Amino acid sequence: MKDLTITLHPHSGKHLYEQIYLHIKNEIRKGKLLQGERLPSTRYLAEFLQVSRSTVELAYEQLLSEGYIEARPYRGYFVCPAEELYDFGEEGCQAGMDNRAKIDDMPSDADIWKAGEGEGKPAFQYDFSPNTIDMSAFPYATWKKITKNILVDANSEIFASGSPKGDYILRETIAHYLHISRGVNCRPEQIIIGAGNDYLLMLLEKILGRHVKIAMENPTYRRAYRIFDSFAYRISPIAMDRSGMSAKGLRASEADVAYVMPSHQYPTGIVMPIGRRMELLKWAGEKDGRYLIEDDYDSEFRFRGKPVPSLQASDRLGKVIYIGTFSKSIAPAIRIGYMVLPLPLLRIYEEKCSFYSTTVSRIDQRILNEFIGKGHFERHLNRMRKIYREKQDELLDGLKGMEKFFAVSGENAGLHILLQDKRGRSEEELTDAAAKAGVRVYGLSEFCVGEIAPQWKADTVILGYASLNKEQIREGAKRLRSVWA
Amino acid sequence: MKDLTITLHPHSGKHLYEQIYLHIKNEIRKGKLLQGERLPSTRYLAEFLQVSRSTVELAYEQLLSEGYIEARPYRGYFVCPAEELYDFGEEGCQAGMDNRAKIDDMPSDADIWKAGEGEGKPAFQYDFSPNTIDMSAFPYATWKKITKNILVDANSEIFASGSPKGDYILRETIAHYLHISRGVNCRPEQIIIGAGNDYLLMLLEKILGRHVKIAMENPTYRRAYRIFDSFAYRISPIAMDRSGMSAKGLRASEADVAYVMPSHQYPTGIVMPIGRRMELLKWAGEKDGRYLIEDDYDSEFRFRGKPVPSLQASDRLGKVIYIGTFSKSIAPAIRIGYMVLPLPLLRIYEEKCSFYSTTVSRIDQRILNEFIGKGHFERHLNRMRKIYREKQDELLDGLKGMEKFFAVSGENAGLHILLQDKRGRSEEELTDAAAKAGVRVYGLSEFCVGEIAPQWKADTVILGYASLNKEQIREGAKRLRSVWA
Repeated sequence: MKDLTITLHPHSGKHLYEQIYLHIKNEIRKGKLLQGERLPSTRYLAEFLQVSRSTVELAYEQLLSEGYIEARPYRGYFVCPAEELYDFGEEGCQAGMDNRAKIDDMPSDADIWKAGEGEGKPAFQYDFSPNTIDMSAFPYATWKKITKNILVDANSEIFASGSPKGDYILRETIAHYLHISRGVNCRPEQIIIGAGNDYLLMLLEKILGRHVKIAMENPTYRRAYRIFDSFAYRISPIAMDRSGMSAKGLRASEADVAYVMPSHQYPTGIVMPIGRRMELLKWAGEKDGRYLIEDDYDSEFRFRGKPVPSLQASDRLGKVIYIGTFSKSIAPAIRIGYMVLPLPLLRIYEEKCSFYSTTVSRIDQRILNEFIGKGHFERHLNRMRKIYREKQDELLDGLKGMEKFFAVSGENAGLHILLQDKRGRSEEELTDAAAKAGVRVYGLSEFCVGEIAPQWKADTVILGYASLNKEQIREGAKRLRSVWA
Repeated sequence: MKDLTITLHPHSGKHLYEQIYLHIKNEIRKGKLLQGERLPSTRYLAEFLQVSRSTVELAYEQLLSEGYIEARPYRGYFVCPAEELYDFGEEGCQAGMDNRAKIDDMPSDADIWKAGEGEGKPAFQYDFSPNTIDMSAFPYATWKKITKNILVDANSEIFASGSPKGDYILRETIAHYLHISRGVNCRPEQIIIGAGNDYLLMLLEKILGRHVKIAMENPTYRRAYRIFDSFAYRISPIAMDRSGMSAKGLRASEADVAYVMPSHQYPTGIVMPIGRRMELLKWAGEKDGRYLIEDDYDSEFRFRGKPVPSLQASDRLGKVIYIGTFSKSIAPAIRIGYMVLPLPLLRIYEEKCSFYSTTVSRIDQRILNEFIGKGHFERHLNRMRKIYREKQDELLDGLKGMEKFFAVSGENAGLHILLQDKRGRSEEELTDAAAKAGVRVYGLSEFCVGEIAPQWKADTVILGYASLNKEQIREGAKRLRSVWA
C-alpha cells in the first residue's frame, strides 16, 4: 500500500470527495496504481488528507460503483484488474457462483449509470439540465436539528410499523399545506404517502387496474412515460396546443385516464387556462372510470403572475388524482411523495391495496412533519424561490440581445426556460453548436413521445439553471450567445 | 378548554402516551369531554404532565386516527361530535368537497385499522401473537448516535438521489453479511434494496410478468398470499408434508414459480431437508422461467441445532430469488428489505425496471450500513437471540405438564411455537377456552389457504411470545394450563 498524495482544492467548486475520486481514478488509468494494489483505509486516508471519513467513503463508493476498485471483506480496498473494469471480475466473485460464465455480458452498475445519464458523459463544462435542483441552500442544520430532537424524544413507538397510508399526523399536515398553497380539497384520509412518485404510480396501477388506456401530453415528462409503458398501459400521446392537452385530441383518443401537468407543464411551461381545465373535467365527468392524474411536480416555484390553483381545486366530481413530491422542493434523497385519491378510488384502495405496508419510515415521516409544521418548509421555499429567480434573471440577462433570434418562454415558473429559434435553425444545429462551446442544452424533441407535434417544431431548446451557480450561468450564456448569434 | 388531570403511572408497563390516550378516550366516551370542546395544546399538556411533547403528540395522533378528536388548522384539537365517531365528520370537512354526500359509508382510518387487526379488539390480557417483535431491547442509543454522526458528516451528496438499486456500499455490506451468515452467493450487483418486502414483491411482479402461476406452501404466510392475489397471480396452495412443500404437489400444480420458506417455514416451523431442497431446485432447473422465491424472513433467530443455510446457497443454476428484511431483526419502522436476483432476472430488471427510483432514503441506507458494518447488528442479534430464547424457555416452562395433551413443535427457531392437541380437541375449542381466560392464541387454520391440508388438521394452535414480557408469558401460560388441562 502506498500513500496517496492528493492535493485538494477546497474552493475549486468541486466537492472534496469528487477530487479524491478523480485523482485515484486517474492514477489507476495512468497505471500509477497497479491492479491488485491495496488502497489506504478510509480512516487512514481521511486523517492523512484532513477530511471527514465520509468524504473518503463517498470517493471509494464511487470508484467501487464504477468498477475501478473492489472491496475484499476484512482486507480492504484493492485496485481491480484493468481488463475487468466495467465488468464482473473473476477475482472477488463469491465461491459457488456457477453461473459465472454467463455474467460476462451483464452490464455493471457503472454501465447502467452511464446509460441512465445519456451518451457516456461528454465533457460539457456547462450543463443546463432541466432535471436538477440546487441543494446548496438546503437547511442542513435545521434538518439535522429536527432529526436529533426527534430521536432524543423517540420511544419504541416511532420504530414500530405505522399506518399503510402514512402517519395520520403527517397526512394532516400535508392536507393543510395543500389546501392553503394549492387549493386542494381533501381529508387526510384521502392521502397516501409513499416512497417517491414511481412507487405511488405503481400503487395507482393496482388501483386503476391493468387495462388502462392513458393519454399523455406531448411533449411530456418522459420518466412518467417509461413508467406507464412498463405497466403495459396503452399510451396515447396527445399534441399540446398553447393551452395544454387538446381536449379534442383527448376525446379522439378513447383514453380512460389522462396524465397532465396543468399548473406548469413539463417541459413546455404552459399553464392550462381555466377553460381547458373545465373541458378536461367535463370529459372525465362524462363516464365512470375516467380520471385525470394531476402531477403537480414543481408548482412551488412560481416567480411571476398570480398563483395557479391546482386542477383538483376545481374538481367537483371526484375525478382528479393529485400527485406531488418533496423531491424537487426539499431534496431528491427525501423519498417522500403523496397522492390524493378521489373517493371512488380511495374505496378501491381500501379494498384492494390497504394491506401494502407503508414504504416510508416513521422517523422520516416525523422529521418531514416537523419540517413543514414548524414553518421551515415555507421559509425554505421562499429562499429557494428567490435563489431560482435570481438564477433565471442571470440567465435571461446573459442572453440579452438574443430576443431577435429566439422567442423565450416558460419563465414564469419552474426551473428551466425554452428558446424557440426564429430563424429556422433546428434544435440539432443549436445543441451541436452549444456542445462545441462546451455547453449542454436540451432539444425539445427529447421530451416528445412518438411523432413530434407540428406545433412543436424541432426548433426549440430547453435550458435548466437550477444546479449551476451564477458565474456558470453567466459564462454558459456568454458562450451560447457567441455560437448562436 | 379545561385542564386534563391525568394520573400517569410510569412503571405500569403501559407507555405514557398510551395512558394519556386511554384517559382522554375514556373521558370522551363517558361524556366528560363534550363534543366541540377544545383539548389543551400538545405543548401545554406536555408541560402540565411533565412528559415530552412527542408523547402527547403520539396520544393525540392515536385519538385522531381513531376519530375521537379532530384537528382544526390554526385552532387546535377538538372533540369530535359523538355521532360522527368512526366516520368522516361534516364539520372540519374542507370547503369545496362536493362529493361529501358520498362519503358517509366510507370507512375511516380507524375502521380500517380495526379491520386489519381482526375482530374489533376483544379484551385479551395476554396476546400470544406470532406476528410481533420485541422492541424493548433495541439499541436506540446506538441508532441515534450513528444517525447523529452521519448527519454531522453529511454533505449534499447524501441528500442527492442515489442508485435505483440502493447505494453500492450498503449492497456490498449486505452481500457480505448474507454470505457469511446464510451462505448466500451473490455480487452486490445482484441486490436490490427496497422499502420493505411488499414493495420488493411489486417490483418482482414487474420482472416476472403478469401471467405467473405461483405455488405456495399451505399453511403459509397470508400476507404474501394477499399480495400475490392482488397481482392476480394464479395461486396453487401446495400441502406441506413434514419436509415442506411437496415436490409431487408442486409438479402437479403446473406452477412457474414457488414461494417457499425453507429455513423456517411460517407458521409450521419446518426446516426443509436437503433432499427436498434438491427436488425443488431440480424442478426449477427443468424449464426456463421456473423460479423459487425464498423468503428468509426470520432465519436470524435460530436457538438450537446447526445453522440452516439458505436454499440460495445450493442453487447452481440461478433459480432462486432470495428475499430478506430488517423489519423483524431490527425494527418494523426501518423500511428496508432486499432481494437477490439470479442473473437471468437481473438482466430483465436492468432492461425493464432499473429506471424506477429507489424507495429508501440515502440517509437511512447509510445509517443501516454503519449499523451492520460496525458490528452493532451482530451484537443486537446475539442479544435478541438470548432474549427470545429465554422467553421461549419461560413459555415452555410455563406449559410444563401439558406434553401429555399436546405435541410441541417449532421451538428450534423463530418467535412462536405450535401446540398440536393429542386428544382431538379442535383449534376452535382451544382458542375459545383461551379467550375466556383472557388469552389470545391463534389457530393454524388462520394461516391456511383454501382447504386445510389433511396433515394439518384443525387441532393446532400457535403461540408467539416476542412482544410479551416474562411475567406476561408466565401468567398467560398458567391460564392456558388451567383451561386446557
